[in-house]
Amino acid sequence: MSESIPGKEVIEKAHTLITPYIHRTPILTSQFLNQLSGAELYFKCENFQKIGAFKARGGLNAILSLSSEQLKNGVTTHSSGNHAQAIAFAAAKVGAKAYIVMPENSPSVKINAVKGYGAEVTFCKNTPEERQGAVDKIVENTGATFIHPFNNYEVIAGQATSSKELIEDLDFKLDAIIAPVGGGGLLSGTSLSAHYFSPGTEVFAGEPEGAADAILSFKSGKIEKAPFVKTIADGLLTPLGDKTLEIIRKYVKDIFTVSDEEIIAAMQLMWERMKIVVEPSGAVVLAAVFKNPEIFKGKKVGIIISGGNVDLGKLPF
Amino acid sequence: MSESIPGKEVIEKAHTLITPYIHRTPILTSQFLNQLSGAELYFKCENFQKIGAFKARGGLNAILSLSSEQLKNGVTTHSSGNHAQAIAFAAAKVGAKAYIVMPENSPSVKINAVKGYGAEVTFCKNTPEERQGAVDKIVENTGATFIHPFNNYEVIAGQATSSKELIEDLDFKLDAIIAPVGGGGLLSGTSLSAHYFSPGTEVFAGEPEGAADAILSFKSGKIEKAPFVKTIADGLLTPLGDKTLEIIRKYVKDIFTVSDEEIIAAMQLMWERMKIVVEPSGAVVLAAVFKNPEIFKGKKVGIIISGGNVDLGKLPF
Repeated sequence: MSESIPGKEVIEKAHTLITPYIHRTPILTSQFLNQLSGAELYFKCENFQKIGAFKARGGLNAILSLSSEQLKNGVTTHSSGNHAQAIAFAAAKVGAKAYIVMPENSPSVKINAVKGYGAEVTFCKNTPEERQGAVDKIVENTGATFIHPFNNYEVIAGQATSSKELIEDLDFKLDAIIAPVGGGGLLSGTSLSAHYFSPGTEVFAGEPEGAADAILSFKSGKIEKAPFVKTIADGLLTPLGDKTLEIIRKYVKDIFTVSDEEIIAAMQLMWERMKIVVEPSGAVVLAAVFKNPEIFKGKKVGIIISGGNVDLGKLPF
Repeated sequence: MSESIPGKEVIEKAHTLITPYIHRTPILTSQFLNQLSGAELYFKCENFQKIGAFKARGGLNAILSLSSEQLKNGVTTHSSGNHAQAIAFAAAKVGAKAYIVMPENSPSVKINAVKGYGAEVTFCKNTPEERQGAVDKIVENTGATFIHPFNNYEVIAGQATSSKELIEDLDFKLDAIIAPVGGGGLLSGTSLSAHYFSPGTEVFAGEPEGAADAILSFKSGKIEKAPFVKTIADGLLTPLGDKTLEIIRKYVKDIFTVSDEEIIAAMQLMWERMKIVVEPSGAVVLAAVFKNPEIFKGKKVGIIISGGNVDLGKLPF
């Protein structure tokens, strides 16, 4: 695994590696949302990505970067969400075994999706220690390679390919890109792509008020905890890692927080006006654009929609 | 207004006319739905079209085909649904006045959308006679041009541009295209585009069992009534017109009916797996593909998703 921040050619290579397995997701626009925000918005639809989220990119790049020796022993990770599916999906693509540790209270639809890709699922209690402990045991027993959900340079380089496509497809004319931030894999990758492929494009992030650790870490330079954790954007609960923090501090311009009410309102607008299924984490960025017109008004803004994995039976509207 | 079936160059001209005002909607694919159906499916996403449905195309072409003399007196139609919005939207684009007759029990969200485009709304009782009567009165008083929702060759030529794009974007390689059928504007346009631009491509239709008039008319050659009318696909309740029936009899290969249970199941799959908001009428065609594997298995099939205008508060799942 790489031990330094991915360079331009590392991201280019990641893109070449994963392209046969992913969708080059479409970019949608909405006259209505442009008028409402006063900006020119370009929505990069990672909700249409394989497994329904951008995480397929990072998972694929991490696994396709392993040697055939390493692949023989399989891969492992812990996740209750999109990363679990990404690793199971990517491992299936290369015929490698995937051992996925999931909290025992994970929704059955997610467990079934992971099993559907042929992965072996191990259940554990939902604490960071139990999760990491279960993974460590798998590594010890099988020699599988652990793939961290975000604090991993191959994963970051993979996530960077989404904004690389966005930048290319819009002819390098974006003034800004905004991505959601949880562990920071997507945000750090986004900021690297802007830095290398479109240096005039500023990168921002949206974060829920109810998981506001990244904004604190961004300011202090240390990994901080959120003052409180309570948000509908359940994909963004994780604190940053040291690798993502370093990149974000270097290349991200600013982070904006939004309330759950603002997230739900933005989400409903995207469903109703854009006709797309977006998860709360994917609506955080549009909410942040609405909330900060002094930053975004009159600009061409790329919006990364992280994913669309929601329970249709539990919509907040 | 044209008095004969649109020729190839008429559809090409329609496409040129409306292109500045519409989205060239993306085509999505889903590995999961391919596996489930055994076919290679290409979804043409008219739910992402202006006003959230393909009807923007027909409305625009009808209005852009009028003389400036005619436009001075405005346009009129009756509709509780997407056609009302399409005419209001298209009229606003050319600065013409739109008089829209809507049943008094229309959902307020639809009334507001029509008013939002600056149209003048007249309410009437929801019977065919009352609706036409109100329109006739407007024509008499204002000299506005009546634009029928589907039995109008300019409207048909406009709807034809959706499958023209689908055919072009897939390099003329489709074995089949399937569209939903209500009044038959979309279906007749689709069959004309296949006939002119990709003669090897067969055209099929999906129709709800609870509004099964088109399949009867298709067989008898006369405009028939549905045996009973009760379906969630409320965009497909209308019988065919003489113009659409003639084209459909000539160029459509077959029509398949599906139950509401099948429509809802297909709709849920599209929301969950494709992450798109699709109206029941837009799911009818996927349901028909699932139901008729002997027709579609192993083939490249274009699926026209008619629209995505649904009430998020009233989902059937």
